[in-house]
Amino acid sequence: MAAIKVYGAAYSTAAARVLATLHEKGLDYELVHVDMITGEHKKESYISRNPFGQVPAFEDGDLKLFESRAITRYISQQYADKGTSLEFSDPKKQAVANLWIEVEAHHFDPNAQKLNYELTVKPVILGLETDHSVVAEYEPKFEKVLDVYEERLSQSRYLGGDSFTLADLHHLPTIQYLLGSSAKKLFESRPRVNAWVDDITSRPSWTKVVELRNQAFKSSKKE
Amino acid sequence: MAAIKVYGAAYSTAAARVLATLHEKGLDYELVHVDMITGEHKKESYISRNPFGQVPAFEDGDLKLFESRAITRYISQQYADKGTSLEFSDPKKQAVANLWIEVEAHHFDPNAQKLNYELTVKPVILGLETDHSVVAEYEPKFEKVLDVYEERLSQSRYLGGDSFTLADLHHLPTIQYLLGSSAKKLFESRPRVNAWVDDITSRPSWTKVVELRNQAFKSSKKE
Repeated sequence: MAAIKVYGAAYSTAAARVLATLHEKGLDYELVHVDMITGEHKKESYISRNPFGQVPAFEDGDLKLFESRAITRYISQQYADKGTSLEFSDPKKQAVANLWIEVEAHHFDPNAQKLNYELTVKPVILGLETDHSVVAEYEPKFEKVLDVYEERLSQSRYLGGDSFTLADLHHLPTIQYLLGSSAKKLFESRPRVNAWVDDITSRPSWTKVVELRNQAFKSSKKE
Repeated sequence: MAAIKVYGAAYSTAAARVLATLHEKGLDYELVHVDMITGEHKKESYISRNPFGQVPAFEDGDLKLFESRAITRYISQQYADKGTSLEFSDPKKQAVANLWIEVEAHHFDPNAQKLNYELTVKPVILGLETDHSVVAEYEPKFEKVLDVYEERLSQSRYLGGDSFTLADLHHLPTIQYLLGSSAKKLFESRPRVNAWVDDITSRPSWTKVVELRNQAFKSSKKE
């Protein structure tokens, strides 16, 4: 029995963020499926793991956590000597990486999630029509963020600094969805962003998480 | 000349979060005023410090940062031996504190800022009318967050654990504004939340930041 348990579904961007971290670290874990399509994450049995009714929840022995970005930070620090190092040992370098972790959370993700919901979740998963007025509102906001990224990536190979860290990893799940939508062009039209996206999405640990996601979609359709 | 510089205005909630941390640590710093009322934070001279045009920006010698929560974490870790300890040395305890830091950022703050804008910024600063439909939409969402806090505070004296940490401190600026509005009742009606609010807002370091804020308002009105 694995000491590490992730409660969620691999198609959740927040859960995939945690799975990507576990795969980068090469850690064993058990993924306890929470069926978001039937709303299992809003039921009493799950609410005890996360009072906000969101996936993922996480256990490592007697430690129980939720909030994906707190979980990835814990894994990165607790298992610092395993697999890929996802933080800098130099505190000033890590302060800069932390800055870009905040940028992902407060600038990239809110806009990316709005676009993802309209361009992927509604048409592909829920069978609803995309609201193009929402896309028209959020695309320019998202482009402004990507313009900042294009500039940042002229100074360093990765967002957080000269190596791949959580500051990059946190972007993976949402970027992967958007690459399957019309928003792909927003990445492609910015050379440094495009190279960064190619680089981070082709990491072997991430391709494993994408496989888990594809499997989760297939089994949810069979049910 | 102080090595630490904060660019911003004490009436900004994000800047006040950084100032509160510096005062808890008892560090010298220079506050370089950025006049948000005249939009100085959106001008080219400031954009070089923060490409998103938001306050605060921060310098410690040659290190330049933005994003308030990355700055507070840097100060807390870089000056761990000074003043109040704002993080736990036990990594599992700190993982739980990090969870509540994320809750503040993703659940508390978005709702609190919407209410603060309608109940304080618009009527008191901008001379505009409160949109009560926005208040009616966000008050129940904010109450749900406070219900989770009430439950959490039955388990530990502070949000992050048994002592005051960044997980509490990050809430101070927005709570202080809301205490001056009709939203005060939302805190008062929850005994544990109310005691926690009383406790953290009466810290000497925070009362100094509130003084700086009041001075900043006064001088912006004179201009």
